[in-house]
Amino acid sequence: MIMYSRELTVAWGESDPFGLVYYPMMFTWFNETEHELLRALGFPTNKLIKEDRTAFVMGDVHFRFVGPAAYGDKVRTMIRLAKMGTSTLHWDCKAVQSSDGAVITEGRAVRIHAQIQEDGGLKAIPIPEYIRNALTDPGSLINLPEEEF
Amino acid sequence: MIMYSRELTVAWGESDPFGLVYYPMMFTWFNETEHELLRALGFPTNKLIKEDRTAFVMGDVHFRFVGPAAYGDKVRTMIRLAKMGTSTLHWDCKAVQSSDGAVITEGRAVRIHAQIQEDGGLKAIPIPEYIRNALTDPGSLINLPEEEF
Amino acid sequence: MIMYSRELTVAWGESDPFGLVYYPMMFTWFNETEHELLRALGFPTNKLIKEDRTAFVMGDVHFRFVGPAAYGDKVRTMIRLAKMGTSTLHWDCKAVQSSDGAVITEGRAVRIHAQIQEDGGLKAIPIPEYIRNALTDPGSLINLPEEEF
Amino acid sequence: MIMYSRELTVAWGESDPFGLVYYPMMFTWFNETEHELLRALGFPTNKLIKEDRTAFVMGDVHFRFVGPAAYGDKVRTMIRLAKMGTSTLHWDCKAVQSSDGAVITEGRAVRIHAQIQEDGGLKAIPIPEYIRNALTDPGSLINLPEEEF
Repeated sequence: MIMYSRELTVAWGESDPFGLVYYPMMFTWFNETEHELLRALGFPTNKLIKEDRTAFVMGDVHFRFVGPAAYGDKVRTMIRLAKMGTSTLHWDCKAVQSSDGAVITEGRAVRIHAQIQEDGGLKAIPIPEYIRNALTDPGSLINLPEEEF
Repeated sequence: MIMYSRELTVAWGESDPFGLVYYPMMFTWFNETEHELLRALGFPTNKLIKEDRTAFVMGDVHFRFVGPAAYGDKVRTMIRLAKMGTSTLHWDCKAVQSSDGAVITEGRAVRIHAQIQEDGGLKAIPIPEYIRNALTDPGSLINLPEEEF
Repeated sequence: MIMYSRELTVAWGESDPFGLVYYPMMFTWFNETEHELLRALGFPTNKLIKEDRTAFVMGDVHFRFVGPAAYGDKVRTMIRLAKMGTSTLHWDCKAVQSSDGAVITEGRAVRIHAQIQEDGGLKAIPIPEYIRNALTDPGSLINLPEEEF
Repeated sequence: MIMYSRELTVAWGESDPFGLVYYPMMFTWFNETEHELLRALGFPTNKLIKEDRTAFVMGDVHFRFVGPAAYGDKVRTMIRLAKMGTSTLHWDCKAVQSSDGAVITEGRAVRIHAQIQEDGGLKAIPIPEYIRNALTDPGSLINLPEEEF
């Protein structure tokens, strides 16, 4: 299944008074990794919203925080599609220190393809065929992580 | 075991282009709820850091995102200490719409009482007795949620 | 002219590795103060967006950062409408330590009442009469700061 | 004087319910641009803090917000050192749409080289000679923006 990887540098504003990353910020790393992948595949979220009033909203996350990351660290985030349901994407996620591969956090996240309703509610709807295909067979597009996931 | 509850109004900057709360922000809600509880008990995190170079760092989170929350909504966050290990606090967490009690998210979070080392690493250390006591028997301090958890 | 004041506690996630507030976060304080005032007057921003596709967008800010604020500090933010143009609100802003009144930051901010266009651009439009009136004569609604601005 | 430029993609979490960038986030763009420059010169902020308990803290900002930026836009930030005082760096700042050069925001920011004191206060101290030299004559290190500032 599809995999995607991205490197970032821990920003000043992501660090807390302990000098370490404020953990909710780590979810933004994976969020941006997924968004970058969708954009690379031709389905940027703003296009989904504009054309279909849909987006992949977060349904469930389960993460362990294993080792520290601090301001200025180079971090590699990796996501791998473990399973695709009718309306769901099941991602395995991992962030490691670029320098030595030390694990910072790992977990899984389930996204739901949902449409926003007039009343502001959300309704799960099937993932369109063209997105399913692109996620199943991305061709040569995707930059594979150098190491094993 | 101890319980704590707090109400917030969803801020403009917490909402995404879908008009809904960007989900990593929900973790900041629970973070602030815990911090407010620790402060109310007399153990603000800045004091822990200054005196012992310790803090309760996040070890593990598992959350489901059930219903939407949007800019301007009044939200009640609730945390309940489900279990206390030698170095760990196991919190049950829930956020609901204040208006009708509709669940926004629920989950659990395990905090580790850790000391930051000279090399920037973290080491789990036992929760001091006086914090254990305060969390076990907070007296009349704590504002109980009006409804059942 | 109208004045509004609000107290907040500096959150963990707003502090940087220096232990002090990351300065862009201070703008979110004033943003939330304004939004709370508009909500109290009956014009929450989500209503403006929904009904008229308008909002008060930021046009210009000029702030000095005078003294530190750190995690856990109680901070009082104050905004005062210094001038109202056809499409603009000119706010004087100040944040002080609640404990001793020491100034953290002060400045001014010009908001523009703008409508979002189909192409995503923004167009300044006159502030509606009912909002002008409410901002000029808020009645007994508004909580005045205890001290002089 | 020294100039530095950087490209970013507007993140989902930086956008508000209007679909546009929440303006305090723009200050984080310039903050990260400065930090990246200091890191490229060999003076990352974490090193300054660790060795001297100093950092360049924000003293004053004056920005105009000219045109919109939305989720997914490629944005070029540019900073140019306009003046260097004994303890101050005066930056001219600009962010433009990468696609067509349309200005998003422009302004100036004054940083103060400050040392954090035991009581948590900040004291301005002269910028060390080796930093002054690096900022005056960065050699071939710095990537100049392709267009005029």
